[in-house]
Amino acid sequence: MKLKIAIQGIESSFHDLAVRQLFPEAEAELVPCNSFAKVTEAVKNFNADLGVIAIENTIAGTILPNYKLIDDGNFSILGETFLTIDMFLMALPGQTVHDIDEVHSHPVALQQCTTYLQRLQPHCKLIEGKDTASEAKRILDDNLKGVAAIAGKQVAEKYGLEIIASDIQAEKENKTRFVVIGRNATKEIEPNKATLNFELDHEIGSLSNILQLLATFKINLTKIQSLPIEGKPWQYSFLVEVLFDDYEVFKEVITMLKKAVLELKIVGVYKHNLHNAMSTLHKELNYAE
Amino acid sequence: MKLKIAIQGIESSFHDLAVRQLFPEAEAELVPCNSFAKVTEAVKNFNADLGVIAIENTIAGTILPNYKLIDDGNFSILGETFLTIDMFLMALPGQTVHDIDEVHSHPVALQQCTTYLQRLQPHCKLIEGKDTASEAKRILDDNLKGVAAIAGKQVAEKYGLEIIASDIQAEKENKTRFVVIGRNATKEIEPNKATLNFELDHEIGSLSNILQLLATFKINLTKIQSLPIEGKPWQYSFLVEVLFDDYEVFKEVITMLKKAVLELKIVGVYKHNLHNAMSTLHKELNYAE
Repeated sequence: MKLKIAIQGIESSFHDLAVRQLFPEAEAELVPCNSFAKVTEAVKNFNADLGVIAIENTIAGTILPNYKLIDDGNFSILGETFLTIDMFLMALPGQTVHDIDEVHSHPVALQQCTTYLQRLQPHCKLIEGKDTASEAKRILDDNLKGVAAIAGKQVAEKYGLEIIASDIQAEKENKTRFVVIGRNATKEIEPNKATLNFELDHEIGSLSNILQLLATFKINLTKIQSLPIEGKPWQYSFLVEVLFDDYEVFKEVITMLKKAVLELKIVGVYKHNLHNAMSTLHKELNYAE
Repeated sequence: MKLKIAIQGIESSFHDLAVRQLFPEAEAELVPCNSFAKVTEAVKNFNADLGVIAIENTIAGTILPNYKLIDDGNFSILGETFLTIDMFLMALPGQTVHDIDEVHSHPVALQQCTTYLQRLQPHCKLIEGKDTASEAKRILDDNLKGVAAIAGKQVAEKYGLEIIASDIQAEKENKTRFVVIGRNATKEIEPNKATLNFELDHEIGSLSNILQLLATFKINLTKIQSLPIEGKPWQYSFLVEVLFDDYEVFKEVITMLKKAVLELKIVGVYKHNLHNAMSTLHKELNYAE
């Protein structure tokens, strides 16, 4: 049986590419959603086994609302993958850049291509849409002349559009990290990365004590974000991501950490996957539910 | 001469309310912009003296993209103010909730009111727009029957719309913090809060050492966020906010901090303003430029 995987967007979107990087096509079936909240809802309601969502980008940084969705729904992070995001301008076959007077895309994609877009004719309108792939698909479906979309190359291939400008994003080093989320933790073999969330008392120095504990045991903090605590205005929990070499030591530190913080949530324990190895979850997904 | 203050949105928007909470109306002239990027652009290009932008919310948390805009443009944070955000459903006079088949608002406002909106008739369409106030204004301008907007109470008063449902956001404790930004630092009398941004080497424990230094001198960390460093994928600077009692000690710690980190940016030194005192910037704004 195929794994059902919820993503924001449709087939050929960047989220779809991330799924394909993680799972063999024969093993994964997409559940397209039109927002990140719908993705977590689909996983929560058993309409999907897993979700794959963007969590940070080298230009825009951490997508805090998505960490919040993971936290709110008590999901587990089960893995990760990284994609290089290159943007392409595409339109119906035969159209050239001179024919275009409207460009549609996701607001972030439009923003990443501002420098290029300023070179288009001055009357060219920028229209913000839901996601990159859907906007492109609509040009085909409605046979829209004079309209272009900004999306990944794979979108043009999928919907038979013609690329009229390539690599138009301002920053060439544009990479996005995606995480796999599930309803529960799974047993990971030889993990070396973890996402944790904890609350502290309000004593000055509480946080540095905790970070010192991690450092003493060579647990390397790669990221830290304050997240709001519901019902406690201007108080924060700390979302941290760490790398470690020795899983046994990590587990012992977790045991100590539980005694040192007010509340500890282990959001995920998984493999650091900078080289984009495939997931093994389609072989072994075995929720304890 | 009036201060020109750039905001996202139009008159009577929440950003306008934040400006009015900070400056007497006679002293401040709005420069309405349709995105946060346009706000910082207006300040950068001398089309506005100051900008006022939302930076965090008790439900959604830190608005990292806005910290990034401040960082990218090397702006200084000069002050802050806090607003309670209550949402109201409004339409043309005489319309009732039973007449409404379309609700327009900013996506975040729509999301905050999901629970209420589910109670409306099933065919009611939700339409995402630019900002709360503009969507409401359009109902009046185009005499749109059957259409409601979600916005602050002040918007209904301003544009003569009728409130048909009050306090419809799911979370009652919905507060937003706004900061005042300028092109340069100003001289602040008796400040007790600061926003800093620093880079560290990659040694395990670097961050805990820095936080320990702050704690030793009773400088209280209230927030910490990893921000991406341009051109260095998956490396981060740390954005921290601190409270302190003794400004002299704070300045000495800053001197030490400069020696201990790779790069230190003092984003702002200002007064913690939880009780929403008015700004004095309209009396003394004196950029060194």
